[in-house]
Amino acid sequence: MKEVFDYIDSSHDSAIELLSKLVRQPSVAATGQGIKECSELVTNLLGEIGANPKVYDLGEGSPVIAGEIKSKKNPKKTILFYNHYDVQPPEPLELWDSPPFSPTIKEGTMYGRGVSDDKGELAGRLKLTEAFLKTWNDVPCNFKFVFEGEEEIGSIHLGKYVKKSPEIFRADGVIWEFGGVDPKERPQVILGVKGILYIELTSKIAKKDAHSSLGAIVENPAWRLVGALSTLKKDDEILIPGWYEDVKRFTKEELEWIRKAPYDAKSVKHELGIKNFIADMGVDEAKKALAGKPTCTICGMNSGYTGVGSKTVLPSEAFAKIDFRLVPDQDPDDLIKKLRKHLVSKGYGDVEIAYSEGEKAKRTSPREPLAIAAKEAAESVYQKPAIVEISSAGTGPMYLFDSPCVAIGGGHAFTNAHAPNENKRLDYLVSGMKWVADTVNRFAIQ
Amino acid sequence: MKEVFDYIDSSHDSAIELLSKLVRQPSVAATGQGIKECSELVTNLLGEIGANPKVYDLGEGSPVIAGEIKSKKNPKKTILFYNHYDVQPPEPLELWDSPPFSPTIKEGTMYGRGVSDDKGELAGRLKLTEAFLKTWNDVPCNFKFVFEGEEEIGSIHLGKYVKKSPEIFRADGVIWEFGGVDPKERPQVILGVKGILYIELTSKIAKKDAHSSLGAIVENPAWRLVGALSTLKKDDEILIPGWYEDVKRFTKEELEWIRKAPYDAKSVKHELGIKNFIADMGVDEAKKALAGKPTCTICGMNSGYTGVGSKTVLPSEAFAKIDFRLVPDQDPDDLIKKLRKHLVSKGYGDVEIAYSEGEKAKRTSPREPLAIAAKEAAESVYQKPAIVEISSAGTGPMYLFDSPCVAIGGGHAFTNAHAPNENKRLDYLVSGMKWVADTVNRFAIQ
Repeated sequence: MKEVFDYIDSSHDSAIELLSKLVRQPSVAATGQGIKECSELVTNLLGEIGANPKVYDLGEGSPVIAGEIKSKKNPKKTILFYNHYDVQPPEPLELWDSPPFSPTIKEGTMYGRGVSDDKGELAGRLKLTEAFLKTWNDVPCNFKFVFEGEEEIGSIHLGKYVKKSPEIFRADGVIWEFGGVDPKERPQVILGVKGILYIELTSKIAKKDAHSSLGAIVENPAWRLVGALSTLKKDDEILIPGWYEDVKRFTKEELEWIRKAPYDAKSVKHELGIKNFIADMGVDEAKKALAGKPTCTICGMNSGYTGVGSKTVLPSEAFAKIDFRLVPDQDPDDLIKKLRKHLVSKGYGDVEIAYSEGEKAKRTSPREPLAIAAKEAAESVYQKPAIVEISSAGTGPMYLFDSPCVAIGGGHAFTNAHAPNENKRLDYLVSGMKWVADTVNRFAIQ
Repeated sequence: MKEVFDYIDSSHDSAIELLSKLVRQPSVAATGQGIKECSELVTNLLGEIGANPKVYDLGEGSPVIAGEIKSKKNPKKTILFYNHYDVQPPEPLELWDSPPFSPTIKEGTMYGRGVSDDKGELAGRLKLTEAFLKTWNDVPCNFKFVFEGEEEIGSIHLGKYVKKSPEIFRADGVIWEFGGVDPKERPQVILGVKGILYIELTSKIAKKDAHSSLGAIVENPAWRLVGALSTLKKDDEILIPGWYEDVKRFTKEELEWIRKAPYDAKSVKHELGIKNFIADMGVDEAKKALAGKPTCTICGMNSGYTGVGSKTVLPSEAFAKIDFRLVPDQDPDDLIKKLRKHLVSKGYGDVEIAYSEGEKAKRTSPREPLAIAAKEAAESVYQKPAIVEISSAGTGPMYLFDSPCVAIGGGHAFTNAHAPNENKRLDYLVSGMKWVADTVNRFAIQ
């Protein structure tokens, strides 16, 4: 791998140039800004490394761009790189120190929207592929690329692309779109994500707001909503019958990996200004909850008058947005039926449920050859022990890929992804490429 | 009274002119717009009828203007007219058919902000006083006037004026600032108001919003709030210990008056687009609830992300605005202590309570001479049976006045008070003046 690593080191400037080019092209999935142009850009970039790009476009949302490079020496194994070319909206603009779509480098760190999430990783995958091809004139196994353009809006059409064109998603292993080192710069091999069921509950009663003196005789949707919500959860336990039915318990091995993974609870508490976690849980409980606890979180709630001072109004409508995080093998389609049944049984059949997002959880076993390769490569490149996380607390469309997935890459902590002044440390752009390249090579020759 | 009624009839145009003058002068308590000018205007108007006006100004909020006219023939009895010269904000301006501070007459109805609430009544009180003085050269008993300028913002300083200058509030009876006929144009003698305790409950946890995946370990203020709220009420019963302790039960007589008063439940249901009242209550139950049921109404509620679509955020704060309507003899200062104790006992001591408004309820007995006078006068002026309402479902600072109060006047149903296109039927401006004048005369000679 020495010649590949040397190429990565010596082509550092051209990697930065490639990343700058990608960041200069806005691609905001939420608004559609620049999506088409950016999909063309990544198509061309795949073409330039010889990946035979194809555009898959269902006509709704952003197209999926896929490419493939066959390995000469190892055509029976295939690794797939899943990345996304869309970015979060750059707002609020006034909080940026430099314009979000004008990549700016300060002290070895590049600033710009998408520089870290996910254009830095996408550029890294392209450049490490180039490194193999320029030095070995081959790739260690077949390389597949799937670049989607809706990750930042919940990958809303990706499932349809999988159904329509399953062949482009087929592989022996998947390198996920994010990954890197933790706040103490220890490499993390992340092997799973939680699922999600995101819904909106709405209670509507009257056709317009009324004077609150009518509260004596007219039903209040805010009270209906509070009543419905209070049947969902108690003492951090979800009360919907059957909710935990399909939850796979942690294996002994998983518990051991969770125990071994460090978690900087102090930093998290300091960052949020809180003294304790829920129910005073300790670090071990917190790690288990983050990796494997089904949650029910009110993300938003609104009814009636919410301005300054007092207004005596009886609202006509109330709603709450709720994010249930799921774990293997919970199924959002099944759970929403259970939720509906539960609300009816509790006398809240009039509370409407709008289903806005559903994704299953996914985990890859730490015993999987790809997971082992990622861990060994991390320790070889960084010369320190790697942390294995059996699941991130976050969510992504990993479940759409049948094969094992590892989330590794060139990320560092505190990149301000999704926030102003998103940034990427350029030293990790390089080391992340080496890590991924070495992982793929170890996986290929296993 | 014939000569007084004739004067009221013949001075109709000058009454309209006076009302126009008052409406042209903005006086928005919420913003302070025109308050000073309007207080000067009503001071001058009281001076013009010889009421010896005095300005009471505590230096915070709007001044109270008081006046008095001694009766020659009946100086031992005093009636007090309580009115307010402030108005609601005119917004949203685009929904007005004519400018809010340019009084406009169409088909016998005047349009403008405050034309009904409360400048129409205030003008009526001044003109009927003039009618007595111009025809009898006397008033039937002593007349006192208290015109406040903060009724539309909860009469927030009126209690202080009562403490500082109790003499201006002392009388044998009070003619309240509103009153008139119901949707079927039957005169209503309203003898009471509910009290209010308006609070805001807030739960604050982290110092900033976080990613909702942290819902697994970080307390959610929206859930804290829902939890706290759900301890307050169940099946329309307030669960705070001692809440009903001081509630006076309806007397047999009150129940009889409630039974006799008509209530157009159909219109209310139609207007709001609802099929049933709470718990399917019938008209009799609804009338009892409006007059005498303590309520707990969520007027507003907010937390986290409330825009379109899904955002996976763990909110750092949640609040609810709650309006408790009170009945005799509940005391808001006592109840807020009970609420505090209740939340602590239920484990929600961390939920903050902000106290924004507190007024006690008040009722005047239908047997009071003033109430009897008002009913008899209504039936004499309108030549139809009057409805006696032992209490409005609404609230006002009646409890600050020690003497019996009746709410009667020149109002009609659907005046759009507090809303765009506020209006006053000018025929009721005249008949309302007669009704009040006759009430005062009957009360004086009792």
